[in-house]
Amino acid sequence: MLVIGERVNGMFEAVGKAIANKDKEVIQNLAKQQVNAGADMLDVNTGPAAANQVDVMKWLVETIQEAVEVPLSLDSTKPEVIKAGLNLVKKKALINSTTADPEKMDILIPIAKEYKAGLIGLTMDKKGIPRDMSQRSEFAAQIVTTCQDMGLDLDDLYLDPVILPVNMTQPHAVEVLEAIREIRLLSTPPPKMLVGLSNISQGAKERSLINRTFLAMAIGIGLDAAIMDPLDKDLMNAMITAELLMNKNIYCDSYLEAYRRK
Amino acid sequence: MLVIGERVNGMFEAVGKAIANKDKEVIQNLAKQQVNAGADMLDVNTGPAAANQVDVMKWLVETIQEAVEVPLSLDSTKPEVIKAGLNLVKKKALINSTTADPEKMDILIPIAKEYKAGLIGLTMDKKGIPRDMSQRSEFAAQIVTTCQDMGLDLDDLYLDPVILPVNMTQPHAVEVLEAIREIRLLSTPPPKMLVGLSNISQGAKERSLINRTFLAMAIGIGLDAAIMDPLDKDLMNAMITAELLMNKNIYCDSYLEAYRRK
Repeated sequence: MLVIGERVNGMFEAVGKAIANKDKEVIQNLAKQQVNAGADMLDVNTGPAAANQVDVMKWLVETIQEAVEVPLSLDSTKPEVIKAGLNLVKKKALINSTTADPEKMDILIPIAKEYKAGLIGLTMDKKGIPRDMSQRSEFAAQIVTTCQDMGLDLDDLYLDPVILPVNMTQPHAVEVLEAIREIRLLSTPPPKMLVGLSNISQGAKERSLINRTFLAMAIGIGLDAAIMDPLDKDLMNAMITAELLMNKNIYCDSYLEAYRRK
Repeated sequence: MLVIGERVNGMFEAVGKAIANKDKEVIQNLAKQQVNAGADMLDVNTGPAAANQVDVMKWLVETIQEAVEVPLSLDSTKPEVIKAGLNLVKKKALINSTTADPEKMDILIPIAKEYKAGLIGLTMDKKGIPRDMSQRSEFAAQIVTTCQDMGLDLDDLYLDPVILPVNMTQPHAVEVLEAIREIRLLSTPPPKMLVGLSNISQGAKERSLINRTFLAMAIGIGLDAAIMDPLDKDLMNAMITAELLMNKNIYCDSYLEAYRRK
């Protein structure tokens, strides 16, 4: 599974402060820790508060790339912020994200093509997050069709069925699991599925337990990627074990260590 | 989910000894501990070594029923041992188990009907455990059809897709997960699905982690019941959390404690 580290996000207090103070060390340590813990890619989010998000994105991308070599997921609602990052990345990046709104896809799909980047498509539109599985599947179908029409390779698309916190709206978790199953039927090979995992436990008490249980359930249904906290060792152990049970890694008694050495 | 405690099994050394010495306290403590930890039902297995399995089953059923009030799952390959238990149970019992072999079903389905007991049907026959999902589904269909023909209420049937240890034969775990999904399509409402969970980690090093990860994955696909170790607190926490995410329990910050108080 593609593990995208979530920790370089201006919404976290320490990161917000490091951005304000141009403190490279904090950002680079976070980047290194996540990669050492098993992140295959790092999400980069300036945070909504940053005054000049374009400059902050540039500084974050350069700062992170001085420290680690993994590809980056550029996380912003603003195309100009994403483009600023894309102009600097050394590896194939992921655009995080478009919705199913035509006016967003019309801008972001061409950017993905131009920069040979991947694209995350959220199964929602400007009216909000769908209530159920079937609306999520409809948005997914719209995104898939638009990418095909505009010539973006489906291999570069990750569909995100949009998780909501279980303590706010409990029925969504099942709908997301069913959406993963259903959306995977849209094409052969199935579209890649991604979640922003930590949302599921936002505001809950047992965050790590809820995150790792949901991750195992989602992997069992066919999840391909998650934006998640690789520094949560129990979460990584659950992910590695779920992948083992899905027959994606080879069993040995020290399979946890073997995965981490890979 | 129906949690069936696995600990009263003559194959465990302490239980085998307690059976040999007619030591009620050991058995009754195990029964109470499991029920206190959240077992809804207790599996009772004399172990293959017991000299007179009929007498041992009688003694175990009586001993356990002196200590706890939950129903029992009578676990034996021998119909006379199961019948000995059924003659003594105070609550609706579960027969563990029949295979898809006609000569076994012809004996055990009438017993289940006569004693108004539930029945576990293993999706295998005397030739062994199926290699893949589709063979498991075929056996499941045979068991379902035979139960219908012989007049056993499908609500009393639990189908067990038969887990093998992941360290022996890794592809089986995925096949079991897919079998759960596929077999659930056989009828409306779906047939109830059960696993003997601990098999998945037999001989492996990270037993608890493998058990709880697989359990979460299976619950995500629709598992209804598991024979498992309720004394493994991490496993119970994963089960309770997976049920929460499937929207089967109501969220509150102390949902783990709330489940245990129920």
